[in-house]
Amino acid sequence: MKGYPGPIQQVVDNFRKLPGIGAKSAERLAFSLLKRRREDAVKLSDAIREMAVNIGYCEQCRNYTEGNRCNICSDTGRDKQLFCVVEQPEDVLAIERAGEYNGLYFILHGSISPLDGLGPEELGLEKLERLIEQLEVREIIIATNPNVAGEATAIYIARRLKGKPVRVSRIALGIPAGGNIGYADEVTMLRALEGRTRIILE
Amino acid sequence: MKGYPGPIQQVVDNFRKLPGIGAKSAERLAFSLLKRRREDAVKLSDAIREMAVNIGYCEQCRNYTEGNRCNICSDTGRDKQLFCVVEQPEDVLAIERAGEYNGLYFILHGSISPLDGLGPEELGLEKLERLIEQLEVREIIIATNPNVAGEATAIYIARRLKGKPVRVSRIALGIPAGGNIGYADEVTMLRALEGRTRIILE
Repeated sequence: MKGYPGPIQQVVDNFRKLPGIGAKSAERLAFSLLKRRREDAVKLSDAIREMAVNIGYCEQCRNYTEGNRCNICSDTGRDKQLFCVVEQPEDVLAIERAGEYNGLYFILHGSISPLDGLGPEELGLEKLERLIEQLEVREIIIATNPNVAGEATAIYIARRLKGKPVRVSRIALGIPAGGNIGYADEVTMLRALEGRTRIILE
Repeated sequence: MKGYPGPIQQVVDNFRKLPGIGAKSAERLAFSLLKRRREDAVKLSDAIREMAVNIGYCEQCRNYTEGNRCNICSDTGRDKQLFCVVEQPEDVLAIERAGEYNGLYFILHGSISPLDGLGPEELGLEKLERLIEQLEVREIIIATNPNVAGEATAIYIARRLKGKPVRVSRIALGIPAGGNIGYADEVTMLRALEGRTRIILE
């Protein structure tokens, strides 16, 4: 036997294309689907197809959505003059979980990376500028990742919006809650010191 | 936003049911499918459905196969009087990769585990006994895993076949090739010592 039967090998090959799935993991996934009730595999198949066909991009914030406009952009209870710019759709949920933010989002679907062909156009920055004008946006919170690409993107967006009547801010970088100061890296420590806030006693 | 749009959540939920896939991995898989070309997601969906519908069990060895009989059992060039008993279909490929074995296989799809409802019947042991008679099998190599369940299964099968005109053997347990003797656990070391073979110089 040179390999697995065709249909099994097809599943293995298709799983392997996904990031973080190596040869062994792809085999394990395929076999675990075979070992369970076959209806479950068909359910997964249907779910993937349904998602691939029906999920598009929100016409306003570029988040994934079923309709033309996502739930957040359609929500009349949210502050339409406050935008939070994030790299990925997953980042939206992380901010929503915090439960405090009540503005809208704008999803870049990446960070500026000329080598990967990701420039201002791919990140939708012209659209963001149009939204700022149309909705008379008051503040843009840039919540790109605190790494080289994310920082460069934040600075690029801030420069681009300079002179416009909108406040541009960056989320605070510092020691994470529950974190250990002794284990903090130098950059995080520096940012935590720079971003210190005064303790005001009553 | 309480969660992801329905179709995305469906994919996440279905991925989470697979072993070794937690909440974060399931989300990562779903989003990585959305970020790639949609045809690729449809291809994965098709492959999973095709596999779920078309893969059955070989009528002889119980391995996964598309037809009634698997490639190995259909291969006239293989020794039909030598059987290797393994726990899982994946184990077959590991033995085939070694390139030496030219007999047939018999897949238990598990090891004896009364708590999980896996007894002699579920493991197909009656079928194995019938095959041994029909094909006049010369030797049964038991290649179940060298853990408690696998060892118990090996001993159970050996006892069951006692008195029948078939040789029952067990694969060698010992230090793996490239392994480190200093790091070997006690059971492996004991087995490696017990299974020592004489060095014969020319």
